[in-house]
Amino acid sequence: MFADRLVDAVRRKGTPCIVGLDPRIEAIPDFLTAPVRHLPADEAAHLAIAGHNRWLIERLAPRVAAVKLQSAFYEANGLGGLRALMDTIDCARRHGLLVIVDVKRSDVPSTAAAYAQAYLGESEAFGRRRPLFDADAVTVTPFLGVDSLQPFVAECAARGKGLFVLVKTSNPGSADLQDLTLASGERLYERLGGLVDQLGAGLIGASGYSSIGAVVGATFPAEAARLRRIMPRAVLLVPGYGAQGGGAGDAVGCFNDDGLGALISASRSVTLPTADREIAPQELELLVTQRLQAMIDEVGRAMRERGLPPMGQAAAASATLASS
Amino acid sequence: MFADRLVDAVRRKGTPCIVGLDPRIEAIPDFLTAPVRHLPADEAAHLAIAGHNRWLIERLAPRVAAVKLQSAFYEANGLGGLRALMDTIDCARRHGLLVIVDVKRSDVPSTAAAYAQAYLGESEAFGRRRPLFDADAVTVTPFLGVDSLQPFVAECAARGKGLFVLVKTSNPGSADLQDLTLASGERLYERLGGLVDQLGAGLIGASGYSSIGAVVGATFPAEAARLRRIMPRAVLLVPGYGAQGGGAGDAVGCFNDDGLGALISASRSVTLPTADREIAPQELELLVTQRLQAMIDEVGRAMRERGLPPMGQAAAASATLASS
Repeated sequence: MFADRLVDAVRRKGTPCIVGLDPRIEAIPDFLTAPVRHLPADEAAHLAIAGHNRWLIERLAPRVAAVKLQSAFYEANGLGGLRALMDTIDCARRHGLLVIVDVKRSDVPSTAAAYAQAYLGESEAFGRRRPLFDADAVTVTPFLGVDSLQPFVAECAARGKGLFVLVKTSNPGSADLQDLTLASGERLYERLGGLVDQLGAGLIGASGYSSIGAVVGATFPAEAARLRRIMPRAVLLVPGYGAQGGGAGDAVGCFNDDGLGALISASRSVTLPTADREIAPQELELLVTQRLQAMIDEVGRAMRERGLPPMGQAAAASATLASS
Repeated sequence: MFADRLVDAVRRKGTPCIVGLDPRIEAIPDFLTAPVRHLPADEAAHLAIAGHNRWLIERLAPRVAAVKLQSAFYEANGLGGLRALMDTIDCARRHGLLVIVDVKRSDVPSTAAAYAQAYLGESEAFGRRRPLFDADAVTVTPFLGVDSLQPFVAECAARGKGLFVLVKTSNPGSADLQDLTLASGERLYERLGGLVDQLGAGLIGASGYSSIGAVVGATFPAEAARLRRIMPRAVLLVPGYGAQGGGAGDAVGCFNDDGLGALISASRSVTLPTADREIAPQELELLVTQRLQAMIDEVGRAMRERGLPPMGQAAAASATLASS
C-alpha cells in the first residue's frame, strides 16, 4: 500500500523533503545538452531532459524518499518531453525512489478512468497489457466531485498506488474558489478536506496513514494547520517550498505530532541552483547537494523547534513495511 | 480571433453539432486495425487510433465545424496515443475543422503557462520554435482561480486561440462542489459563470462572442439556462449528448436568441455506432453519417421548436470573417 511504502521511505531517508523534477530545457547546463542539442527537435528534447533528470536522480536518490514530476513541463516539450517523462519515471523507480506525477487531472468518471489507467494502471490493446506512465501516485483536481475521483481511488486500492487531491493550492488566486465561504459557514477548502478524509478512510495502512492524500500549499500556514486537523490520516503534499516563497516555518504546521504526515517539495531551488549554464559538473553537483541539504536541515530544525520527534528514530521499527 | 472563426464555421456548416474523437482502441473496427495490430505496442496504438480518426475526419469534415479530442483516451495509450493525438490535430486542421482539445488542465500560474504553451502556443528549445499540440482551443479547470487561467487567456489573445472553462459539468458528482450554495446566496457555478464572463470581456470578436467560453453539461438544463444568462457572450461547449444521457431538448437552452452561442458535442454515439468490430467500411460509413445526421436533425428541430432562427441563413453575411 502506497501510504506505508511512503512513510517507510521517509523514515529511512530521515527527512520529509522531496524534490520536484520540472524540466526547463533552456536552463539545463551545457555539459548535459551539448551532446544532443543538434539532434532533431523531439530527440534533443527527450535526451536533454531525460539526461538531466538521470543526473539529478543519481545524486538525489540516497537523500530523499520521492520525486515529484510536474507533467506540464514535459508536455511543453511535446512527444520528446513525454518520452522523457516515461524514462524519468522508470529511472527514479530503478533508483528506489517513489514517483509522484503531478498531473492535476480532472474529468467525468468514464474519462477519469482512462486517466487512472494511463498513470496508475495498465493499458490493454490488441491483447497486450502494459503499464504506461507508471507512477506510484498522482495529483488530481476535485472540481468535478467525488464520482470523478472514484476511478483513481479504485486503481489505488487495486494496485497499491496513491492519490493527492488538491485542497488548498499555493497560488494567490487559490482564494477565488477554494476560500469561498459556504452557506454552512465552512470554507470550500474545509468542505473538501472533509471529503478527502472520507475518501481515504478505506485505504489506511499499518502506518496509520491513508493512500489518499491532499495537496496543501506551504504559502497559507493557517489554512494548512486547519486542514491538518480535518484530515488527520492524510499525507499532505506541500509544494511551493523555495521558489514559490514558502519557508520551513510555514510548512511545519502540516505535520502531525508524530513528525509524519507531510511531504515538503522543492523544485527549481534545488535542481536549477544557478543561471550559469557553463557550470562544470563537479560544481553543479556541489550546489545541488548543498541546496538540498540546506532544505533538509531547515525543515529538520523547524520540526525540532515545534517539538516534533526526528523521524529517523523510528526507522528500525518500520523497516518490515518496506516490502508491502 | 477564435470566437469569430467558430461562429463563422458553425454558420457555414449550418449546425452547432460537433463530434468528439475519443479513441477506444478495443472498439475500432477490424478493417482499420488489421494492418497494424501486430506491430510493436506503441506503433500499433498510434496507427490504429490515427487511422480511425483520419477515416472519421474525412467523413465528418463536410458536416461539422469542429472536433473535440478528449486527451485522456490518447494518454491512456501512452506515447503511441499521444503521437496519434498530434497527428489527429494536424489531420483535422488540414480538413478545415476547428480543433478543441479537451485537456481540463489546471495548475498554478507558472505551470499553467507551460500547459498553455504546449496546447495553444509554441515551444522553444535550442533556438528552434515550433508548435506542439496545436489546438484552436482547450478546456481548463478553474479550481485554482483566475490567476491560473490568465496564462491561457494571454495565449488566446496573442495567437487567436480559444478557451472553454469548466463551469457546470455533466456528471452527477458535479453537484459536490459546483452546486454548493455560498454565503452570498449564489451557487458556486453562478459565481464561476460571472468570473468567466469578466475574463472573456477583453476577447469579444465582431460576431459578438468571446473567445473565452465555458463547459456546461447538457444533463442539467435549468443550470444551463441560468448560466446562459450570466455569460451572454460566451460560447457554451455542451458535452454529454447521446451516450451521457443529454438530449436535444435539454441542450437547446444553451443557445442565445440568435440561435448561436453553443456547441453540442457527441462522441461514442456517432463515432462508435456498433459493437460489431467486423463491420464493413461501407456499412460503417452509412451508420456514422446516419447517426450524425440524426443528431443534427434532432438539434435543428429542437431549436426550431424553441423559435430560434436557423443558423444557415446568416452564412453569406459572415463569410468574410472566415479568414480572420
